[in-house]
Amino acid sequence: MTDLTPGFTGSPLDRADHLRNDPDAVAAAARDPRARLLLLDGIDPRLDERGLLAWGDMAEAPAETPLALLGLIGGAPRFAPIVRPAGAERSPALFRLLDALPASEAATFAAARSLISWHARHRFCANCGAPTAPFRAGWGRHCAVCGTEHFPRVDPVVIMLAEHGSGADARVLIGRQPSFPAGRYSALAGFVEPAESIEEAVARELFEEAGVRAVAVRYVASQPWPFPSQLMIGAIAQVANDRITLDEKELEEARWVTRADVAAAMAGDPAALFLLPPRYAIAHTLFARWLAGA
Amino acid sequence: MTDLTPGFTGSPLDRADHLRNDPDAVAAAARDPRARLLLLDGIDPRLDERGLLAWGDMAEAPAETPLALLGLIGGAPRFAPIVRPAGAERSPALFRLLDALPASEAATFAAARSLISWHARHRFCANCGAPTAPFRAGWGRHCAVCGTEHFPRVDPVVIMLAEHGSGADARVLIGRQPSFPAGRYSALAGFVEPAESIEEAVARELFEEAGVRAVAVRYVASQPWPFPSQLMIGAIAQVANDRITLDEKELEEARWVTRADVAAAMAGDPAALFLLPPRYAIAHTLFARWLAGA
Repeated sequence: MTDLTPGFTGSPLDRADHLRNDPDAVAAAARDPRARLLLLDGIDPRLDERGLLAWGDMAEAPAETPLALLGLIGGAPRFAPIVRPAGAERSPALFRLLDALPASEAATFAAARSLISWHARHRFCANCGAPTAPFRAGWGRHCAVCGTEHFPRVDPVVIMLAEHGSGADARVLIGRQPSFPAGRYSALAGFVEPAESIEEAVARELFEEAGVRAVAVRYVASQPWPFPSQLMIGAIAQVANDRITLDEKELEEARWVTRADVAAAMAGDPAALFLLPPRYAIAHTLFARWLAGA
Repeated sequence: MTDLTPGFTGSPLDRADHLRNDPDAVAAAARDPRARLLLLDGIDPRLDERGLLAWGDMAEAPAETPLALLGLIGGAPRFAPIVRPAGAERSPALFRLLDALPASEAATFAAARSLISWHARHRFCANCGAPTAPFRAGWGRHCAVCGTEHFPRVDPVVIMLAEHGSGADARVLIGRQPSFPAGRYSALAGFVEPAESIEEAVARELFEEAGVRAVAVRYVASQPWPFPSQLMIGAIAQVANDRITLDEKELEEARWVTRADVAAAMAGDPAALFLLPPRYAIAHTLFARWLAGA
């Protein structure tokens, strides 16, 4: 994984969509001697001695717990237990672990994590209120009362660098949420709303949060974010003004930084103006791509 | 609207997010003498004598129907009634109407339509099964029993032209679903799943549906699709092979077409090999952008 590669991408999983609708095929996959079960600590990944995701025998599946067929790796079925989360959803230990995990391993974990979180928060039918049950090998829930089929939710989020000026004089806008670790700044971000394009969501969020007006938006890269299940859509927006009007409910500070400032942060220079987001976050990728000319 | 502009974009609405969380401000907006109510036929748009969206007085709001604050146009509040749909959701008449409606008007309608459809399908709490009620001026539902806040769902969908070859020799893949009108072909498409990037979803769908292997994916454009609430993400994928292996559950036919073939379809040539999707669908935009060099 380089700074230019989005985190949580590159899983070797073949999602094997053709198997999911065939309960006999899913049952056969679970009996396949090559089948493996993702091992978890609560809903966090467990690692093996190589620092990769740990997999166990299907017999290690917890009792009374439905299984999701994540897909196939090298033709061998891979399952995850649809456990019920207990306690804090995101621990500092999880993020230290993600710092060390290859993006492709994190991507495989992400599929399990997003599914587990979705099942936990969607045990009832939004259409009629009745309890629902997993179907399609864990990739959906079905309501036996009204017949509605529910599918895992993916929430698109735009995350963007506002860019003012061009070439060597260009600067980008970084912002701090109060919850960030000391010194950390990132790109601005927000959920795409119904009836918005990506470009419109980028422009709306930049104006709402910082008062800057986007005049041109260019897509850069995307990644999934499995806490619980966002699709992060990374962009750079050329903006018309550099006067910042801060939405203090969203950000405690925002400032313009130069290529030299971002390069110093990327190099880990102790004199850098700010600390970058971790490499597995697409904001990191955005900064790296901007330095590389995106 | 040109062939290069995505449909359902360019609404003049200022979504006025700052008002939504303030019930007093929303009530004041509803009493504002400039406030207007979107007029609907069922859940389809009603048009005025100019062929634009029809708006009425707030007094025309149906009884016992909650209102959504769509936002502001020129500083004046615009509301839509959160009606309960009855009967067929998408009529041929609706699509004829969309053919004639400017994209910016369709975009304003789309916000109302997606919200109305979401409320209708999410009257109960997915977390505990209790009935929920609208909050945040119609941009969410709240469960008074377990406290969960629910927000309108937006489902990201990738839609893409597979491209084989380059320059004057390039060809793109078009496909037909059995439900399409006679002669109509389109780009391939599919929902982004949990733990996938846009680029990974494009590659997976092209391989699942047509057996072609994407080697490079370039983002082109996006649009919302309000039936009920998709974010359509348009891309072109250079593929390594041109041998098609059709998934006959998804497509009844797929074929490669040249720039001349697409240009003939775009020009409405009666001898064209195929009929394009309507201009308000992003597949149309994708074909136009490809011809223009995207």
